[in-house]
Amino acid sequence: MAIESHKIHEALNWRYAVKRFDPSKKIPSVDWQTLIETLRLTPSSYGMEPWRFVVIENPELRAELRAASWNQSQVTDSSHFVVFLAKDNVSETDIDQYLQRVANARGTTVESLAGFKSMLMKNLVKAMTPEQAFQWSQRQVYIALGFLLKTAALLKIDSTPMEGLDPLRYDQVLGLEGSGWRTVLAVALGYRHPDDAYQKHKKVRFTADEIIQYK
Amino acid sequence: MAIESHKIHEALNWRYAVKRFDPSKKIPSVDWQTLIETLRLTPSSYGMEPWRFVVIENPELRAELRAASWNQSQVTDSSHFVVFLAKDNVSETDIDQYLQRVANARGTTVESLAGFKSMLMKNLVKAMTPEQAFQWSQRQVYIALGFLLKTAALLKIDSTPMEGLDPLRYDQVLGLEGSGWRTVLAVALGYRHPDDAYQKHKKVRFTADEIIQYK
Repeated sequence: MAIESHKIHEALNWRYAVKRFDPSKKIPSVDWQTLIETLRLTPSSYGMEPWRFVVIENPELRAELRAASWNQSQVTDSSHFVVFLAKDNVSETDIDQYLQRVANARGTTVESLAGFKSMLMKNLVKAMTPEQAFQWSQRQVYIALGFLLKTAALLKIDSTPMEGLDPLRYDQVLGLEGSGWRTVLAVALGYRHPDDAYQKHKKVRFTADEIIQYK
Repeated sequence: MAIESHKIHEALNWRYAVKRFDPSKKIPSVDWQTLIETLRLTPSSYGMEPWRFVVIENPELRAELRAASWNQSQVTDSSHFVVFLAKDNVSETDIDQYLQRVANARGTTVESLAGFKSMLMKNLVKAMTPEQAFQWSQRQVYIALGFLLKTAALLKIDSTPMEGLDPLRYDQVLGLEGSGWRTVLAVALGYRHPDDAYQKHKKVRFTADEIIQYK
């Protein structure tokens, strides 16, 4: 059954990038499971899922990451703080492992996917430098960002997408160097503080006519 | 009021990348308005909205774009076909125009936003080459992609995200050269054909344990 349009409009208008979270409020487990499932089921180019998500629970780690995020309070005061990682390269091994998973899930053989493999090798390995592959991975991560922010709003969970962080410092703090994964962005999730003035700011957006054209 | 979790799970599992649309079915106007509003209210870095969306209604244009998309039938057979554009550079003029819109919306002056302007100039103009600014814009476009696909699924509208297209050829067909906007991807929207075999394929996804780590 489809969800009523007005509930989607309401969620879109309700959300904003929270500046100050209420540190006393925690996301209930049932909602957290829905947020995780949203990340898990996000679609990606070719289905490659070139992403990982690190949920930072340790308070010392949160404090270190806050220092690497212009001291923004959302890092330590949100209920859940999730770092989004992208794959820094795509190799033939990655593709073979992916095709094995496809074959397993669909009860077929890797050999039957030879044509798909050629296409993946051509588009993701041969046609791309490692840096271009990382750019491609990063773009996929932003689909997951969109999915997560949207689900959060539907559940009336607040969020702050954070690009304003030092990704290299994050990589160091999280021990990612040499892992094949790099920090792209983070999302703080929880509940707005009643005193966060930003919730009263009027949304600034182009009108539909300004951004949508019919041809 | 929050939306029930099970409806979100249902939508996430229901969606898939449609290969064959039913060309006889059209998205009702009320749902189209919700899809547009979803694009319009998608959040972006600094609120800059470095995107535009072109809805292709003209059948000849659709045919030309299909030829630039590996002849994929979704381009011509979907109810609505939307091309996502990203800004190919960010200039001081863009930032000034944005700050004017912020000032207008919030009843303040551009002068009061001088600190914000310095930050935008530093991060989006001085610290980035035009190519890096385009990469940044593209990443924002993928948030809008995530928002749109998610809303479509909630409304039980099918979709196909399409990266498999020739962006330069699209730019030519749409007359974008020199406009400051470049094609990034497209989304076909409508309703799955009952004979589309892909709807029966099992979803291939990592488990939550494979992609989510707690620290």
